[in-house]
Amino acid sequence: MAISEKETEFLSILKKITRYEEAVSLLFWDARTGAPKKGASDRAETIGELSAVIFEMQTSEKIKDLIESLSNESDHIHNDTRHAVEEAKKVYDLFSKIPAEEYQAFVVLQSQAETVWEEAKEKADFSLFAPYLEKLIDYKKRFLGYWGYSGNKYNTLLDQYEPGLTVEKLDEMFGKLKEAIVPLVKKVGQSSSQPDTSFASVFFPKEDQKKLSLFFLKELGYDFNAGRLDETVHPFQITINPGDARVTTKYNEYDFRSALFGTIHECGHAMYEQNIDEALSGTNLRQGTSMGIHESQSLFFENFIGRNQSFWNRYFTDVKSHAPEAFKTVDEDQFYRAVNESKPSLIRVEADELTYPLHIMVRYEIEKAIFNDEVTVDQLPDLWNSKYEAYLGISPSNDAEGILQDVHWSGGDFGYFPSYALGYMYAAQFKNKLAEDIPEFEQLIEKGEFQQIIQWLKENVHVHGKRKKPLEIIREVTNEELNVQYLIDYLTDKYETLYLKP
Amino acid sequence: MAISEKETEFLSILKKITRYEEAVSLLFWDARTGAPKKGASDRAETIGELSAVIFEMQTSEKIKDLIESLSNESDHIHNDTRHAVEEAKKVYDLFSKIPAEEYQAFVVLQSQAETVWEEAKEKADFSLFAPYLEKLIDYKKRFLGYWGYSGNKYNTLLDQYEPGLTVEKLDEMFGKLKEAIVPLVKKVGQSSSQPDTSFASVFFPKEDQKKLSLFFLKELGYDFNAGRLDETVHPFQITINPGDARVTTKYNEYDFRSALFGTIHECGHAMYEQNIDEALSGTNLRQGTSMGIHESQSLFFENFIGRNQSFWNRYFTDVKSHAPEAFKTVDEDQFYRAVNESKPSLIRVEADELTYPLHIMVRYEIEKAIFNDEVTVDQLPDLWNSKYEAYLGISPSNDAEGILQDVHWSGGDFGYFPSYALGYMYAAQFKNKLAEDIPEFEQLIEKGEFQQIIQWLKENVHVHGKRKKPLEIIREVTNEELNVQYLIDYLTDKYETLYLKP
Repeated sequence: MAISEKETEFLSILKKITRYEEAVSLLFWDARTGAPKKGASDRAETIGELSAVIFEMQTSEKIKDLIESLSNESDHIHNDTRHAVEEAKKVYDLFSKIPAEEYQAFVVLQSQAETVWEEAKEKADFSLFAPYLEKLIDYKKRFLGYWGYSGNKYNTLLDQYEPGLTVEKLDEMFGKLKEAIVPLVKKVGQSSSQPDTSFASVFFPKEDQKKLSLFFLKELGYDFNAGRLDETVHPFQITINPGDARVTTKYNEYDFRSALFGTIHECGHAMYEQNIDEALSGTNLRQGTSMGIHESQSLFFENFIGRNQSFWNRYFTDVKSHAPEAFKTVDEDQFYRAVNESKPSLIRVEADELTYPLHIMVRYEIEKAIFNDEVTVDQLPDLWNSKYEAYLGISPSNDAEGILQDVHWSGGDFGYFPSYALGYMYAAQFKNKLAEDIPEFEQLIEKGEFQQIIQWLKENVHVHGKRKKPLEIIREVTNEELNVQYLIDYLTDKYETLYLKP
Repeated sequence: MAISEKETEFLSILKKITRYEEAVSLLFWDARTGAPKKGASDRAETIGELSAVIFEMQTSEKIKDLIESLSNESDHIHNDTRHAVEEAKKVYDLFSKIPAEEYQAFVVLQSQAETVWEEAKEKADFSLFAPYLEKLIDYKKRFLGYWGYSGNKYNTLLDQYEPGLTVEKLDEMFGKLKEAIVPLVKKVGQSSSQPDTSFASVFFPKEDQKKLSLFFLKELGYDFNAGRLDETVHPFQITINPGDARVTTKYNEYDFRSALFGTIHECGHAMYEQNIDEALSGTNLRQGTSMGIHESQSLFFENFIGRNQSFWNRYFTDVKSHAPEAFKTVDEDQFYRAVNESKPSLIRVEADELTYPLHIMVRYEIEKAIFNDEVTVDQLPDLWNSKYEAYLGISPSNDAEGILQDVHWSGGDFGYFPSYALGYMYAAQFKNKLAEDIPEFEQLIEKGEFQQIIQWLKENVHVHGKRKKPLEIIREVTNEELNVQYLIDYLTDKYETLYLKP
């Protein structure tokens, strides 16, 4: 077969995988947006059936041969195909190196573990979940044996979510970040100048909050012909196909900030998805390049736009017009401070932008310790609690608000959490460069004109999809390596101004 | 391979087909309930991809062999499997008898024809659609050559939607029905006692109508843990899986009757789907046995329950509590008469229960003429218009409200329409028997107690799924053959009382 025919065949398999992924994504979206519960078990089987077909296509002998041939002749194929082959190879290696029966057993364990985790969390009893966590860790350690690693064992796990990232780099950056933030959090907590947030807990009907969410999505340029907004227990963004990037949000009728910033956050994810180069459609490159870069876009929208004082100079009156009576007595400054309230808390997903990275660091340090055999499973709750005490000055009263709070581990996902903090670093570094390239950044936001800013993000980040690796993007766009200093400067400046120089 | 192994393999293929059908159903549902339009073309390709897999499974050599083996040893397999084999054979024969390229060309023509039909309807110009209709008819005639027929050529098409039904039977029943209804419609139209429906066109906000729809679904026993209600341009019921039978409705803010009876109608379809024997899950028997029997259930709910005077004795106050001010001056009798208004109209989907069957008969007679070569395509609009004049006393002013009004023909669906009228006949015959078995039928409705009635429908109709054929069900349940007289008696009695004996 000529190389061009192989290229065609390879691309047609990618396209077929994309089709199956569209169906699976829709099944997931639907399951979370109101599918009736009696349909759940059949639904799960259907997802399983289609996912198995995807898995087969990704690990078949045929794709293996095509990857090999095309890798050997990478000069004779389209540049995008070359990247697609690399990506396909990564997935192939990931799954095919594990003996099939072992992987199968792991999948079964995952689904059992999630059920057990739910129960353990409900009962705030880590001991129920511990044996499952132990097995999940054992599997992952064995997989690491198949996958191999260089330097730290945890590097291989990190690389699966954030290609190119290593423990060495993270340790350095997290070290600096911790050194700057821990004392800052403390000072903020002790400041006599705390925001008055009483109005935020006034009843704000869901229907009005929904209108507000729709308003901001429209203002920020979200394309409703290529997406939709729904309500879910946990907000998320999901891409069904290139013309369909959906967002969801969660309404808390006694704290409007949850839906407002949740929506703006998911909008950032969706803009990324809506702006990826059309030429990549139907391939494995038409997606965000990494968890961390994806999070950088959502955080850019949430924090650098949504929690920006200029933004509220422009939009505070719009919030007022959607909001309850109680907002009438609130002024712009009080509002701005309330939406930037910082306070140590136990639950990661409810944390503010200043304390959030500390939650991630706790998890990171613990995961690193697990995979370097420095801690046993039964020691985890104590380790967790002592780290919260050290970094945030508070400690969980039970495992549900401590070590059991997140679902990730029950799915065997280790190495994923650091991406959340990386997103902050990428975002701050992008923001710094963007403000150099577009010096009128603040004025544009104050006028509610986002096109130029979004165009910058699109050209520099979004459009590439998976064509470029995360660290390659940050290097090319900002002319330097990933640098945590931008985040430190941003947080220090912002929170000192808010809390320490009243 | 032992016969039991073949049975297992056969059933596992059916299950796999069911999984793919679940995904395709959800994609369809989603497309109609708010999927963004820019995702439409990818969506269509995904539906095409998965449908092709279903088609392959239904027409493979493997299924052919299994059908053959299991048919030969039908004494040694489970009774349900025997029915499932028959059903699979029917589908296999349907598709495999047509040369693959010819079928492929037909599928392409279908999708072109639907687009052209849309345009033709918009421009009210039949001549645009005529060449496509001509080709579709040519294909179907050629397919009839492959499929064969006994008696009338149209019998084969009828049988695809309503197994066992023939032109001979339909001609006889439709003849009697026409003889009874045409003069009745005329008398009703000339009656001096017409209902006052002015209140029905008062603005009734969608949100309140939605609450009313949800209220009635709940009252009628619709299980919201196994379904959900959404809004669409055309109301429909769709089953995603055995635990997920969804309904949709359409809100007209200037005529509440549309959503109210649309919802009750779709509820009837959904009850059927929710009540099919669980043992049939994952097979081709877990669905309504025919279009006509399905329609009988929706019509039973809509007309024999929803348009019943006893029902409004119970629920009129509930409507009032959801409805606009204008309803306050309306009394129960005026309301009952308004929701049973009968008036000749041009559009089938908006017709009332008395005139509806006449719309079907027009279409039936024309389809029969087409497949017996008694009319050419260019003669169709005139034939259509003259039949409306003859049966309903009115005639379309253009093709959009005449021959172009329905989408079905553009998909090459011929033989489907009679099922709509059959639904009325089945429903009336079931109703007659049910009232014999449960003499307190009216009292139960007046009390809003539907369990016993639904239980009767479940045991006699729903539970069987496709295990039993439509005419077998009607015979077993009512101890006689399908008999149009029950429908004639019902309509005559009801509409004479409403309009002619005031």
